[in-house]
Amino acid sequence: MESSRYDEGLKKLLEMEGEAGSAVIEKMKLISPDFTRYLLEFVFGEIYARPGLDIKTKEAVTIAGMVTLGATLQLKVHVKAALNLGFTEQEIVEMMLQLAPIVGFVRAMDGLMAAQQVFDEKTKGELGTDKGQE
Amino acid sequence: MESSRYDEGLKKLLEMEGEAGSAVIEKMKLISPDFTRYLLEFVFGEIYARPGLDIKTKEAVTIAGMVTLGATLQLKVHVKAALNLGFTEQEIVEMMLQLAPIVGFVRAMDGLMAAQQVFDEKTKGELGTDKGQE
Amino acid sequence: MESSRYDEGLKKLLEMEGEAGSAVIEKMKLISPDFTRYLLEFVFGEIYARPGLDIKTKEAVTIAGMVTLGATLQLKVHVKAALNLGFTEQEIVEMMLQLAPIVGFVRAMDGLMAAQQVFDEKTKGELGTDKGQE
Amino acid sequence: MESSRYDEGLKKLLEMEGEAGSAVIEKMKLISPDFTRYLLEFVFGEIYARPGLDIKTKEAVTIAGMVTLGATLQLKVHVKAALNLGFTEQEIVEMMLQLAPIVGFVRAMDGLMAAQQVFDEKTKGELGTDKGQE
Amino acid sequence: MESSRYDEGLKKLLEMEGEAGSAVIEKMKLISPDFTRYLLEFVFGEIYARPGLDIKTKEAVTIAGMVTLGATLQLKVHVKAALNLGFTEQEIVEMMLQLAPIVGFVRAMDGLMAAQQVFDEKTKGELGTDKGQE
Amino acid sequence: MESSRYDEGLKKLLEMEGEAGSAVIEKMKLISPDFTRYLLEFVFGEIYARPGLDIKTKEAVTIAGMVTLGATLQLKVHVKAALNLGFTEQEIVEMMLQLAPIVGFVRAMDGLMAAQQVFDEKTKGELGTDKGQE
Repeated sequence: MESSRYDEGLKKLLEMEGEAGSAVIEKMKLISPDFTRYLLEFVFGEIYARPGLDIKTKEAVTIAGMVTLGATLQLKVHVKAALNLGFTEQEIVEMMLQLAPIVGFVRAMDGLMAAQQVFDEKTKGELGTDKGQE
Repeated sequence: MESSRYDEGLKKLLEMEGEAGSAVIEKMKLISPDFTRYLLEFVFGEIYARPGLDIKTKEAVTIAGMVTLGATLQLKVHVKAALNLGFTEQEIVEMMLQLAPIVGFVRAMDGLMAAQQVFDEKTKGELGTDKGQE
Repeated sequence: MESSRYDEGLKKLLEMEGEAGSAVIEKMKLISPDFTRYLLEFVFGEIYARPGLDIKTKEAVTIAGMVTLGATLQLKVHVKAALNLGFTEQEIVEMMLQLAPIVGFVRAMDGLMAAQQVFDEKTKGELGTDKGQE
Repeated sequence: MESSRYDEGLKKLLEMEGEAGSAVIEKMKLISPDFTRYLLEFVFGEIYARPGLDIKTKEAVTIAGMVTLGATLQLKVHVKAALNLGFTEQEIVEMMLQLAPIVGFVRAMDGLMAAQQVFDEKTKGELGTDKGQE
Repeated sequence: MESSRYDEGLKKLLEMEGEAGSAVIEKMKLISPDFTRYLLEFVFGEIYARPGLDIKTKEAVTIAGMVTLGATLQLKVHVKAALNLGFTEQEIVEMMLQLAPIVGFVRAMDGLMAAQQVFDEKTKGELGTDKGQE
Repeated sequence: MESSRYDEGLKKLLEMEGEAGSAVIEKMKLISPDFTRYLLEFVFGEIYARPGLDIKTKEAVTIAGMVTLGATLQLKVHVKAALNLGFTEQEIVEMMLQLAPIVGFVRAMDGLMAAQQVFDEKTKGELGTDKGQE
């Protein structure tokens, strides 16, 4: 039963975060397999899998928590997840603007710079893919 | 032009937060009329009024920021606002559950207790109104 | 299997926190049965139950996290737990002194005042019990 | 030599914070005489006593740190100290306004409410004294 | 009228932060022109422009907020601004020493290292200029 | 007497942190000799030297404070200290797992990555030493 929750969590994470999430999981597994298991079983397999709130609002809430903590690394992974879930770049920028007066321009500015890095990498990736298709 | 932004902000705040927001404004005006003006003109008249993200996601983001800071007082006002905007009590509880692993069970528990106080006051208020109508 | 983890968590919590923990659980169940379940299943049944670090060090780490966040309410419950686990009052005071230069005298002072409230309630409780036994 | 630093710290604290500081010291002595000693010897006798920055700027910096942490209790003591050092009420309000965009309106609002409580108590105290003199 | 506030804010920012501020503005404009506009119009054009507190105390308060948040990037820009406003390097170091016991040696140490980086860059810049003049 | 406290602090720091601590001290001396003196005299010579709590629990508490603040740089120095004091790598990992639900998976993940960097450097160092001995 636990293993099904693990699998469900992994599926959810890959669905949301794609390669970026997969890279985090591989990295964290080497540091602490149990932390990684809790991340998949509990955070993704249990909490993200709950039905009572739509996944996009959950992701917005997650991003806001990370901006407030000033946690750039994890924020970048979740900005990617937000894009995968259908938020536009502009909507993600708007989240940071909304947070600017609430938790301060300092945290919002860091959030915007992290988001922009994700947007830039994505554009480069797409350009790269385009080139590859030529 | 400024005064129109002030009025727009006040309208937005009353629409979202009703009496609770109005009470905060009256209280803050006595402490600092300028802080109150910035709250109405800038936070509500400018930031909340931006069109690029739906108001419910903005409010979820605001609540998440406040839970992460552990800011109980303002959180309660925005839990009321979230209810006014159409979030159900259960959805607000789900926001706290979503934040539990991200920013910790400690902040999430404080968030849940603050939300429950709002739900209880609302129920009492409604019961009171019912009684008053008899 | 889940229910056994729930039971194990509840047993752990009662063992550590006694009545204070029990009261928190009853209160939180009314707000969110699922949050309470995660608290028991995951935090107490899984994380606290891990064998790789002695329970007293785990509790010291927990207290330090709560002092740093400035989370008075939960800190008081865990000061009680620390006493139950065999830490002396003086050792708990020393934790706050250790944190004073690390996270600041401000958070350490709040931590000391919260701890003292627990020590005082305990003394009153014991006096009360003594009286009751006469 | 240590005892002279303790005395110097106590003198500094009383000079800055008056009765409010004295009350904190008496309260903290009962909880941890050593914490209180460090507060007097190190924070007031050493850090506050340093000559390289004027005392008013030091106090402004202290208040800003406390507003950012959301530490209401200690903030109130230091708002009193700031008044004793010659800052006007309006200048203290301006510090909170300055912090509003930097660390967020949420923390600034809590700071303003804490400051106002100090201003109100002071006014009552003065009125009380006036009455007493009649 | 808004555009005059924007211009006033830009003038204030350039006056305070010089090239460093200008670089931030150019970078942020590419990410979010509106965030940049709020930074200029509201933070610099409105808040910094308020007359009730001298600009040096405002800057000290801003720096203290950033040290407490652990926001290195923005802190460096504001250490430059503090130097431009007439604070000496030693006075900025003293701000960090003052914050050490309040918000902890950890944040103060990060603050000192950020400040030192600014001092070093400034020295190199001046040496560079000297060389260029030969 | 002060100089003896300084020497005692330096001895304690070198004992706990070895070369890593020594490097921090040399670096900080160039930035602020007084900050470094307080670090040695007060934090190491006074607080760490207190007898009422065993040194390993003190270090666990210190690490927990730094994880909660998200202070990677200082955390790495104290992970080294924890290893020197006899904590195993696995026990340090367990501290982060214990903190995951308390202060959030975000801070715990950063803590785990910082700890792993220390473990990796240590392994490289040991391999290097082994090689050198051939």
